[in-house]
Amino acid sequence: MPDTLSLLKTRLAEVADLNYAAAVLEWDQETYMPPGAAESRAQQVATLRRLGHERFTADEVGGWLDRLNPSPEEEQALVRVTQRDYARATLLPSAWVSAMAEAKGRALEAWKTAREANDFAHFAPHLQRIVDLNREKAERLRPLLADERGNTYAPTEADALYDALLDEYEPGAHTTEVAAVFADLQRHLVPLVEAIAAQPQLDDRLVHRAYDEDAQWAFGMQVAEALGYDLRHGRQDRSAHPFTTSFGIRDVRITTRLDPQFFNPAFFGTIHEVGHALYEQGIDPALDRTPLADGTSLGMHESQSRLWENLVGRSRAFWMHWFPQAQRHFPGALAGAKAEAFYRAVNRVEPSLIRVEADELTYHLHVLLRFEIERALIAETLAVADVPEAWNAKMEAYLGCTPASDADGCLQDIHWALGALGYFPTYTLGTLMSTQLFEAAERDLGDLNEAFAEGTYRPLLDWLRTHVHRWGRMRSANEILRDVMGGGLDAAPWLAYAKAKFGALYGLGLEAEGSKPQAHSF
Amino acid sequence: MPDTLSLLKTRLAEVADLNYAAAVLEWDQETYMPPGAAESRAQQVATLRRLGHERFTADEVGGWLDRLNPSPEEEQALVRVTQRDYARATLLPSAWVSAMAEAKGRALEAWKTAREANDFAHFAPHLQRIVDLNREKAERLRPLLADERGNTYAPTEADALYDALLDEYEPGAHTTEVAAVFADLQRHLVPLVEAIAAQPQLDDRLVHRAYDEDAQWAFGMQVAEALGYDLRHGRQDRSAHPFTTSFGIRDVRITTRLDPQFFNPAFFGTIHEVGHALYEQGIDPALDRTPLADGTSLGMHESQSRLWENLVGRSRAFWMHWFPQAQRHFPGALAGAKAEAFYRAVNRVEPSLIRVEADELTYHLHVLLRFEIERALIAETLAVADVPEAWNAKMEAYLGCTPASDADGCLQDIHWALGALGYFPTYTLGTLMSTQLFEAAERDLGDLNEAFAEGTYRPLLDWLRTHVHRWGRMRSANEILRDVMGGGLDAAPWLAYAKAKFGALYGLGLEAEGSKPQAHSF
Repeated sequence: MPDTLSLLKTRLAEVADLNYAAAVLEWDQETYMPPGAAESRAQQVATLRRLGHERFTADEVGGWLDRLNPSPEEEQALVRVTQRDYARATLLPSAWVSAMAEAKGRALEAWKTAREANDFAHFAPHLQRIVDLNREKAERLRPLLADERGNTYAPTEADALYDALLDEYEPGAHTTEVAAVFADLQRHLVPLVEAIAAQPQLDDRLVHRAYDEDAQWAFGMQVAEALGYDLRHGRQDRSAHPFTTSFGIRDVRITTRLDPQFFNPAFFGTIHEVGHALYEQGIDPALDRTPLADGTSLGMHESQSRLWENLVGRSRAFWMHWFPQAQRHFPGALAGAKAEAFYRAVNRVEPSLIRVEADELTYHLHVLLRFEIERALIAETLAVADVPEAWNAKMEAYLGCTPASDADGCLQDIHWALGALGYFPTYTLGTLMSTQLFEAAERDLGDLNEAFAEGTYRPLLDWLRTHVHRWGRMRSANEILRDVMGGGLDAAPWLAYAKAKFGALYGLGLEAEGSKPQAHSF
Repeated sequence: MPDTLSLLKTRLAEVADLNYAAAVLEWDQETYMPPGAAESRAQQVATLRRLGHERFTADEVGGWLDRLNPSPEEEQALVRVTQRDYARATLLPSAWVSAMAEAKGRALEAWKTAREANDFAHFAPHLQRIVDLNREKAERLRPLLADERGNTYAPTEADALYDALLDEYEPGAHTTEVAAVFADLQRHLVPLVEAIAAQPQLDDRLVHRAYDEDAQWAFGMQVAEALGYDLRHGRQDRSAHPFTTSFGIRDVRITTRLDPQFFNPAFFGTIHEVGHALYEQGIDPALDRTPLADGTSLGMHESQSRLWENLVGRSRAFWMHWFPQAQRHFPGALAGAKAEAFYRAVNRVEPSLIRVEADELTYHLHVLLRFEIERALIAETLAVADVPEAWNAKMEAYLGCTPASDADGCLQDIHWALGALGYFPTYTLGTLMSTQLFEAAERDLGDLNEAFAEGTYRPLLDWLRTHVHRWGRMRSANEILRDVMGGGLDAAPWLAYAKAKFGALYGLGLEAEGSKPQAHSF
């Protein structure tokens, strides 16, 4: 007779396989699936997710979890994390899981069609269904948060629902705290972006030239490997919206999209996804096929993608090394250009329409806008039909530009079509964490720009493997931050970094403004 | 409360989804999966196959099947076919299904490595495992055949096992009958191939020139679409060994491989797989997600691929239409060449090493060899370690050539690595059926070569849809043959076709030899 822990692990491996299989089907849907198969695929994914949910939420699993009280740290973490997942999952009935999987499959196809045809009305009923299913989910999950957070937890009715959604992506986060962080960022960002707007603009014509697609692919793959992405256990494909997906620790894939006239989307998209993939590939292999084999929160996940994309990939030292190679890949576009000019071109700050192409600063205003619209949809103070109008009004207010089409507006992101509400804020939370982690790494390793100037990333990757990656979900985001920084989430390092870097690039003389001093200079 | 038929259909749809998902994972393994993921993938596929098996063989399914006695033809067929599948499946325990899935996953990777390194020893333990698991399967299934076939069924011990394997791929087939068909073919083929060898050889240098890979791809896809392959519900990718796979009626995919110096492998490989895919795409959509949504036997499946590959794709009329287009795709290779010369080049008969590249005649000697080796492995009169020696000896005896390496010998085919023993004979059975069906189609439609000369395939496809495709597994192969021909499997039409076509090509004057007269002339 196998012991209780073995029974639990066997079941968890089965559930992991079902979910990995669903992820393969979803990856295929985004990359290679013929269009006429969407309906069948939605049914298949729904079946896999439903069975995974049923096998995980079965009564015997609850019994095993109640009986288990292991002492080794790894097994303790397994039981603790699984207990929480079990509690969440048993609050969601199979019918809901199945309905959501099917709604996502259909919404995804509708979103693609709507985006192509610039026809929000085609997507609207699917978005309404997603909102309704998310509200149902939040209603079912909110008692769990109330239990965990105790007597002092007294959110408004609407925030209680949004908290329950947010908690799936950023465990422990509170809507009110997130709103406060955004208010803080907005307060510092608006004057910074205004000050930049008053300066002569950086010339970015270098990145808006003809970039051969095959060469973009080759250069992106070369850099991805140099950063440490293991292609024996990963690959890159094309998709409409870049993403990272994992079918276990040994198969972590990324996608990108190519613009033949613009260098940034594919290149920084690739590095961004590589950051996610390095996290997944770095999880302790002993955790494979368990609930621990995942990023500990989406914020922490995003900290990895942002760290590699911006703190590495948009640093001057990075381009000192890579620019000559870029010139070999793109002899037409880059003949006679200088590395410094390229560094400046990829760091131009300018309000624009598309989140995934936004600069490091205005990016967070895109996230703020989505956070506010999501909160309003969940609070039912905004109707789905009014999303385009609300979107465009906020774009004008925060970024000073209005999309000419919904394709470049509220239809640009895949997240809602994937059923995810409460996800967007983690992009900004992750960016804040990325600077905290980078500061800690430089404290331990010294100035990393010297290594970057030589194309060396191993010390940084090893540091992240040690302090972040290998733990998977054994440590929460807050525990990781406490381990390396002695404190929790803190916006100050990112604000200081932003002011130092862009102050220098735009000649603002902000360095003496009394920000917390930075050990590293960009 | 849903009625019994609804309960059954819901369960069958769930099982279909699990199996389609496993097929997606297997397709990915052959096309895009990074190499380091093989172990994880084997576990995932094993889990899906095991769950599919468990959900299908559950006691309640047996209860539903016992209670059901519907009157509509479609539902009768569903219950009848499902009852037989259930009987077969319940004789195979979950542990066997899981072990086979895992063994296949590992064998597939080992086969790839072994083939690349020309190292049979690396593959041998995996082949041994596959043979052992097939013997176990045959032992478990043979009582079912004994029951069905009654008192007159008295095979040898070894044939009883091979029958049980064969039955999965060609329901109702007997090893002794298959052996008799092969003996018959061998008796006619050997003198025909010898007579051809005594004539001046056809010049096939035209197909052994530099063929640009992208142009091969484009031309193959153009012809695939012209034949009727629906790319809204299908696609083609590259793989080491060409195959067709289906994730439901609405997603039927093919793969091919490219040789930059040889026209035939990709082109005829594509048409062959298109033939399989047209069958799957033509099944009545009402049968989707049921056990009826499949080819009725592998022989019937192969009849479709062979029909399109050879009776259409290697006909003179086909090339009268397509040769000018081929010249546009391959201006270097085909400048100044004539359609008639190309028709002759693609029909050269010559003993060679690789089955999938063999001509229409010698092909069946490749199959015979595999059939004999499989029978001996199952009978345990041949050890796995001795397969290369046996293979090479038979190649010499039947085809007069010996492979220089196992990569071009017993490691060339994927089938054993996929766990399939008893599969190869269906290639030849299908070829015989293809000529029977083609003869019946011409009886109904008149000379099809006139349509082919105009690039028109719709009448033939519609005829096949009506008489073969749409039925899925509602009608057995024998029922289909009886419906269109009034009789069962018959080798005479194929032998007559072969003698007429190759007699004319090689100037043998065989037409008057007393073969059954043919309504169509090639």
